[in-house]
Amino acid sequence: MKRKEEVMSEVDGVLGDGELSCDVSHGDSSCPELTPIASAPVHDWEAEKTTETDFFDDGTMTYFWRAHTLTALVFMICFLLYEALTPPDEDMVDNTKRGLVASVSAFILLGVTVTPDGPFKRPHPAIWRFTFIISIVYELSLIFMLYQSASGARQLLKHIDPKLGEPMEEKDYGGNCRLYDHESPEDPYHNIWDKLDLFVPLHFFGWWMKTLLLRDWWLCWVISVMFEILEYTLEHQLPNFSECWWDHWIMDALLCNGLGIYCGLQSLKYFSMKTYHWRGLWNIPTYRGKLRRIMAQFGPYVWVDYDWKPLSSLGRWFSMLGIIAIFLLAELNTFYLKFVLWVEPGHWANLVRLTFILPWGAVALREVFQFLDDPDCMKFGRQSWLFLAIVTTELLIVVKFGWETVTIPFPSTTINFSTSMSTIHLSPVGPQHNSPQSSTNTSTHNLSHVVTLWMTIFIILVLWTLWNFYIDPHTFKVDSEDVERRREHWSQVRAIETKLSPSESRLFISEFFFDKILQKETKKD
Amino acid sequence: MKRKEEVMSEVDGVLGDGELSCDVSHGDSSCPELTPIASAPVHDWEAEKTTETDFFDDGTMTYFWRAHTLTALVFMICFLLYEALTPPDEDMVDNTKRGLVASVSAFILLGVTVTPDGPFKRPHPAIWRFTFIISIVYELSLIFMLYQSASGARQLLKHIDPKLGEPMEEKDYGGNCRLYDHESPEDPYHNIWDKLDLFVPLHFFGWWMKTLLLRDWWLCWVISVMFEILEYTLEHQLPNFSECWWDHWIMDALLCNGLGIYCGLQSLKYFSMKTYHWRGLWNIPTYRGKLRRIMAQFGPYVWVDYDWKPLSSLGRWFSMLGIIAIFLLAELNTFYLKFVLWVEPGHWANLVRLTFILPWGAVALREVFQFLDDPDCMKFGRQSWLFLAIVTTELLIVVKFGWETVTIPFPSTTINFSTSMSTIHLSPVGPQHNSPQSSTNTSTHNLSHVVTLWMTIFIILVLWTLWNFYIDPHTFKVDSEDVERRREHWSQVRAIETKLSPSESRLFISEFFFDKILQKETKKD
Repeated sequence: MKRKEEVMSEVDGVLGDGELSCDVSHGDSSCPELTPIASAPVHDWEAEKTTETDFFDDGTMTYFWRAHTLTALVFMICFLLYEALTPPDEDMVDNTKRGLVASVSAFILLGVTVTPDGPFKRPHPAIWRFTFIISIVYELSLIFMLYQSASGARQLLKHIDPKLGEPMEEKDYGGNCRLYDHESPEDPYHNIWDKLDLFVPLHFFGWWMKTLLLRDWWLCWVISVMFEILEYTLEHQLPNFSECWWDHWIMDALLCNGLGIYCGLQSLKYFSMKTYHWRGLWNIPTYRGKLRRIMAQFGPYVWVDYDWKPLSSLGRWFSMLGIIAIFLLAELNTFYLKFVLWVEPGHWANLVRLTFILPWGAVALREVFQFLDDPDCMKFGRQSWLFLAIVTTELLIVVKFGWETVTIPFPSTTINFSTSMSTIHLSPVGPQHNSPQSSTNTSTHNLSHVVTLWMTIFIILVLWTLWNFYIDPHTFKVDSEDVERRREHWSQVRAIETKLSPSESRLFISEFFFDKILQKETKKD
Repeated sequence: MKRKEEVMSEVDGVLGDGELSCDVSHGDSSCPELTPIASAPVHDWEAEKTTETDFFDDGTMTYFWRAHTLTALVFMICFLLYEALTPPDEDMVDNTKRGLVASVSAFILLGVTVTPDGPFKRPHPAIWRFTFIISIVYELSLIFMLYQSASGARQLLKHIDPKLGEPMEEKDYGGNCRLYDHESPEDPYHNIWDKLDLFVPLHFFGWWMKTLLLRDWWLCWVISVMFEILEYTLEHQLPNFSECWWDHWIMDALLCNGLGIYCGLQSLKYFSMKTYHWRGLWNIPTYRGKLRRIMAQFGPYVWVDYDWKPLSSLGRWFSMLGIIAIFLLAELNTFYLKFVLWVEPGHWANLVRLTFILPWGAVALREVFQFLDDPDCMKFGRQSWLFLAIVTTELLIVVKFGWETVTIPFPSTTINFSTSMSTIHLSPVGPQHNSPQSSTNTSTHNLSHVVTLWMTIFIILVLWTLWNFYIDPHTFKVDSEDVERRREHWSQVRAIETKLSPSESRLFISEFFFDKILQKETKKD
């Protein structure tokens, strides 16, 4: 409380000058901003923008922020009324389908309307509420699916798209790995062109987004490289993972992922440096300013840089290892799930899942970071909860429906070529492999390296943990001031975030401005 | 902001005395309470309790308040893991049923874990989160049911209880209305004993609870009497509504409802006068004190008296009429729903619905009252939203499945006995009436009164509205100070409520104590 007392007395001096004598929370547009800029003329929007990072939403966009609960209710009731007044239909299957669709739609409407906002609010909180609700619907569908038999589950997918539920062929990216193929002189680079399909831009944009999620280049590279190692390790189960060495390391890891990470880091830098000045649209006098404001609506409201500090404590170190593991598991699920449920890689259902997994991951990582970093945050985030549940349920579905695939034993490096061939062919559920011979050839070749690699990674991790936290625990530790600094930082972030709901934010906002004023006073000293 | 400034400067003077120099939000049990009592010895708990209403929860019960999100997740995953590892079952119907039960259970677990708290928190917030989630599940089931045919919906209920889905007989409470029956000399009071069934205590306890919900004796009596009038009005559709005059007015309205309302008002008085001193259990030294604290856990955390002030504005007047209408509609649905879905009145499904409707209504009314009364509350509550949706969907189900019943025309008072008889018998969906002759006899007898009564009520309402809000609008108006007072009151309530989540309440609490101190200062002046 001592700290607060100081703030109060500092603030009281400032309040005495009468600078704060208007109610910020009620969208009072006549209110001068709490900085020396307040004396600038109203139209000097460009100059204002450049002077300092000022968080401010003056309330003129409140109509958009509101959830319109009663409108949504009336809308839903009208829709149901129409249903009640149509003559009844005796077809049970049709009724069940329509009833399910109606219930799920009502749930989504209800969720988007009454769910409280998560950490993200741009371009509109309803979008983030929507993705959250979809994650609930997805998780419940996964649980329902887990209770079906493998064939039943595959046939269920026919309700989504009649083309689904049929056995399919896997594309094998291995095979001929020569960069320059002498045998086909008309197009010697055909191996390279062959590998340049839809998944190259997907890799690139995926990693751009993933970098925005993780907000740490070291974490991005670790996960990107680890996933390539996992592909090597699991190519005896999924022929899809079988790739040439240059496809793994040069095209995927270095070019696609690397470029994606680079672009992601540039975006991070931009968001982190950007001036967040959330003036209401109607109060911006110039046309160019209005346009800029509309564009800015698609950027974040408040930006938090993630400094994961994995070495600051043992708990945090294991949390980081856990995050990496969950992230990799989510990526593996993408491949295994489409394999066991017979969904083509290019099918829209896959793309829809990937599109939703990004916002879920974004919110979950933000929540987890706050959970780890904010000393006042005691509750594990709801989206993180659901993300964990989704990844686990997907894994369980893969294990249940693809038991024969996931239990294909890791081929021993001592066994000869024909034995490992027969191991692959034992898989009864798996679809027909395109060219199992070449893929197995690659795997037996690489396996001794893979085993050595995993052993090395494991031993290094254990030794590093022991050294860093037990043998020499003074290297990377945080000081006690750090906790206070983080508490301060997060209370500011919360203050800015809660600004959006005017009824509850009056005091938080005052505190935030008090803190800012206090910071200025401190700087002057 | 002016008001806040004054508060701040007032507070600063108090802070100068160093009385507030400990952090309340961190459950610091060494913190003296912010009153003169702070100087009392620690064990003087009885004396403290009587001195003043002090809201305080010192954080020693935080373990119970936490949602245990990760424990719930691990629990759920273990359960699903068991499912994934059991051999698959090819029976589609069984799989679907188990899948549905698992999905709904997971949804309830998820909801209880991650849903934010509503306005009520005692005995444990999880109970209120649970009832909220059940209301979502119920509403979604209702929507699903609305999309079925009438016979399909009735057969669906067989999945809940195989005894359901069969046509049933309605009990007719009318018939012989003599209090003292000369014709059966062995037990001349048999008519009275006959009417004393399960529904007498249900009426009584129901109204006890409803009074706790509405917290206004005038509103209670209006709704109680209006419902008896509705029973008179609709007895040509539901034979269940046909009662003797003394059953309507003396046994139901006066005895059961009246006693229930009286007990409810006594409870209200108790809760309103009670001292809310939420000291942590471990800090209470005496055994009697601990016991009292445990009992108090089942009472409310903070009590809000409802002063509905129906005449303070036109909007509020219509809101009150709306609340009465929705309340009566919810009561009517109870009777119509079991009639159209062929559920016996004494069936547990009915009792379960009634048991859940009470907490839904309690939260919804609390939210609606805050929505009307709190100038800072802009959002229509989520439970009110769901309550409205549920009542409307139930009504739509009644209209869709009982179209033949709800469209039985109001028997004209001029038509003779036989015509109205045939009208009743035209109802093809309705189950066989036990003694339609006597019930119709009663209805034709009363109908002219009923029509006159409804006309009178309507005309009085219109005239009253015109007089009060247009002709003589100065009678019951509120002054402008009232808004400030209400704003103050609700910000205190919010402060006490948010105290339960320590991470977000630090400033609210300080404000609440500031306000209390300020009030004391003002009183001294």
